[in-house]
Amino acid sequence: MKIAVLGTGMVGRTMAARLAALGHQVTVGTRDPDATAARATGSGSYRDWAEGAGVRTATFADAAAAAEIALNATSGASSLGVLTQAGADNLAGKVLIDIANPLDFPDGELPTLRYCNTDSLGERIQRTFPETLVVKTLNTLTADLMARPGTLPEPGTVFLSGDDAGAKTTVTGLLHELGHTDVIDLGDITTARGAEMLLPVWLRIMGALGTAAFNFKIVR
Amino acid sequence: MKIAVLGTGMVGRTMAARLAALGHQVTVGTRDPDATAARATGSGSYRDWAEGAGVRTATFADAAAAAEIALNATSGASSLGVLTQAGADNLAGKVLIDIANPLDFPDGELPTLRYCNTDSLGERIQRTFPETLVVKTLNTLTADLMARPGTLPEPGTVFLSGDDAGAKTTVTGLLHELGHTDVIDLGDITTARGAEMLLPVWLRIMGALGTAAFNFKIVR
Repeated sequence: MKIAVLGTGMVGRTMAARLAALGHQVTVGTRDPDATAARATGSGSYRDWAEGAGVRTATFADAAAAAEIALNATSGASSLGVLTQAGADNLAGKVLIDIANPLDFPDGELPTLRYCNTDSLGERIQRTFPETLVVKTLNTLTADLMARPGTLPEPGTVFLSGDDAGAKTTVTGLLHELGHTDVIDLGDITTARGAEMLLPVWLRIMGALGTAAFNFKIVR
Repeated sequence: MKIAVLGTGMVGRTMAARLAALGHQVTVGTRDPDATAARATGSGSYRDWAEGAGVRTATFADAAAAAEIALNATSGASSLGVLTQAGADNLAGKVLIDIANPLDFPDGELPTLRYCNTDSLGERIQRTFPETLVVKTLNTLTADLMARPGTLPEPGTVFLSGDDAGAKTTVTGLLHELGHTDVIDLGDITTARGAEMLLPVWLRIMGALGTAAFNFKIVR
């Protein structure tokens, strides 16, 4: 499928490379493709990384316009702004997979959620883009495990939240391609509150274990 | 050990009976022991249940005064009031195991958390009773699984939050007696935020699975 990955950070690059490796036609969306191409990624320039990964790079709007599916891999605090740049018309009628978390980073303290309990980033995106089919998923995992869950010793669980059954079926198919075998459909997009509210304990578990290489498995 | 179980609801009765069966000397605390004794529990009177379970019943204050360890099994919305009735002096220097969740139940909607993200019930109890050693745990499980986790097909994980290392060691010992084999110490009492913020997704998972008989396992 033609997939726009919005966001050039570590999460976006990890997901873009993995989706391209699975055979999808991936375009990474960014504010300024030339500036992004020249940027260092930690191992060479973004341009080198994109060539190696086999992904194209375009503006948020061009990436979204050409895609069948968009993936929000921006930081939660910037997601609504980026999606606005991508354009409501370019996202209309399409599945938008939201894997972001609305974290704020107060000085010297652990991150907190910008919205929670009675709202969520997933819902805010769905309200702002009512013609887009928003599906929240994968936000409860570190990027490497979103892309390759099989590196854990046993399968964990991922969650789905969204209002459109067809969109959730499409996303479930993609999750299976990535290697996620246990997918629980929590319900409509308001259930993204629960999935996003896993982040505070996720951060504390990471602190306790000294690694982000873990997942929640629902034993039943 | 001498354990005061504060609260006569389903959670309190389940934990009291299990702790008594493990050989502990359990006193259930309640506002009015005579009224409680006469109350129906769903299967006979409370008095019959208490005799069968081998637990005594006393006022919150008397139960706390006689105990080495107290267990807060009240509803989260009433916990601070009940603990105030139990008495700061009666709880001073003792381990208080807080297994409650600060849920509000809005009409026709799923429960929400009364405090979250920047505060928690566990912290509020610790601030209100600074001489008590508060340990948050087990709030992420239905009562039957708090008491008998071995009924699930594989072991899940329980979490610990608290400021006092010795208190957490004591509670870990009790958790092992109950059958909890995977205990993750999240850190100080502020980590209770994360444990309590699991409740919204817990409620949605229960809805999706149609059962409360599940647990989070941290696969790593």
